[in-house]
Amino acid sequence: MRTAYHEQLEGLTNRLGEMCGLAGVAMERATQALLQADLVLAEQVISDHEQIATLSAHAEEQAFVLLALQSPVAGDLRSVVGSIQIVADVDRMGALALHVAKIARRRHPQHALPEEVNGYFAEMGRLAVELGNTAQEVLLTQDPERAARIQEEDDAMDDLHRHLFSVMMDREWKHGVTAAVDVTLLSRFYERFADHAVEVARRVIFQVTGRFSDDDGLPTIH
Amino acid sequence: MRTAYHEQLEGLTNRLGEMCGLAGVAMERATQALLQADLVLAEQVISDHEQIATLSAHAEEQAFVLLALQSPVAGDLRSVVGSIQIVADVDRMGALALHVAKIARRRHPQHALPEEVNGYFAEMGRLAVELGNTAQEVLLTQDPERAARIQEEDDAMDDLHRHLFSVMMDREWKHGVTAAVDVTLLSRFYERFADHAVEVARRVIFQVTGRFSDDDGLPTIH
Repeated sequence: MRTAYHEQLEGLTNRLGEMCGLAGVAMERATQALLQADLVLAEQVISDHEQIATLSAHAEEQAFVLLALQSPVAGDLRSVVGSIQIVADVDRMGALALHVAKIARRRHPQHALPEEVNGYFAEMGRLAVELGNTAQEVLLTQDPERAARIQEEDDAMDDLHRHLFSVMMDREWKHGVTAAVDVTLLSRFYERFADHAVEVARRVIFQVTGRFSDDDGLPTIH
Repeated sequence: MRTAYHEQLEGLTNRLGEMCGLAGVAMERATQALLQADLVLAEQVISDHEQIATLSAHAEEQAFVLLALQSPVAGDLRSVVGSIQIVADVDRMGALALHVAKIARRRHPQHALPEEVNGYFAEMGRLAVELGNTAQEVLLTQDPERAARIQEEDDAMDDLHRHLFSVMMDREWKHGVTAAVDVTLLSRFYERFADHAVEVARRVIFQVTGRFSDDDGLPTIH
């Protein structure tokens, strides 16, 4: 028989999954705002951020109440503690989308990005949505194979991040220092977004298996 | 009468404080490695990082065991949950010091920094040690006044961060794009280090008071 505890835990997990999806959407919109110098869209991401922050606060409180009222043990305890840690990662994913939108707003009506690098950021934005969705699926299915897929998406993001740096450093960069500073920060925000999505997946797998596997393609983030 | 539970919680808090101190020292050494292009010191920070990572894993496990065996309630529960969240922040402080050391190593035998900005980073390194020490004091004393002091140190770090950006963007920057990219990333690492120290203090104050005060100068980090 399912207990009230398990129903509440499932509700919490759904909420965390929903937050991952919202963070992905926020990063997608922030990317569009960046690529199109779209101030309205940037402002929307900035005001929508409140929603993710509120969901975070509620999820953390919900996990705390579960601990306080149900005193779970063993695997159940690990699940709730894991949820509290996951909240911090998802909250951060939302904050990174916010940072991207703020750079788009700061440079408006200029484009923050030189046209030469638009393609990289379009692809990073696409990956961010995927990462948000995959993190949500991993939360809902607790499937280690999907968790491994998130690692592939993260590898793709890291490749783009490194590639952008070589574009700035190795070739003749003609767009000045301000653009280089913006591109450096923006690229870092996408890379960190991906790292946090991987961390969500790692924690889910830990909840399921009770250990961080060294051979599941989900290394510790540093 | 003091219970075994409270002794164990105190042990955990001391360990977290020690980790804050170690993260500050790591950032100080990484800064020296950066300023002096000192490969040996950079390598030392990189190998010492394992120690902070191990302490993190132990602290997290210790908090988990406290939850599992003692099923604390109310304020005690908040303390243990807060400790688990603090572990993630301190772990990240150590990782940021590691990132600084890795940039120093990557550029060796060159200096990563143009001499013009050495003074900023020397000051950021000094602030990082202070922030690590203040976070440790806040953990040990749970004193809201010291928690407010950490906000001042964070403000000073933010000022340096902004100032560095204006040096790169507003003046005639003669050091090329590679140096600008390095300075951007490095400055961001110090700024984030400070943010995490503030977050540690916020969580301690939450443990003590049961709320995040809006008027204690410790705003939510994003």
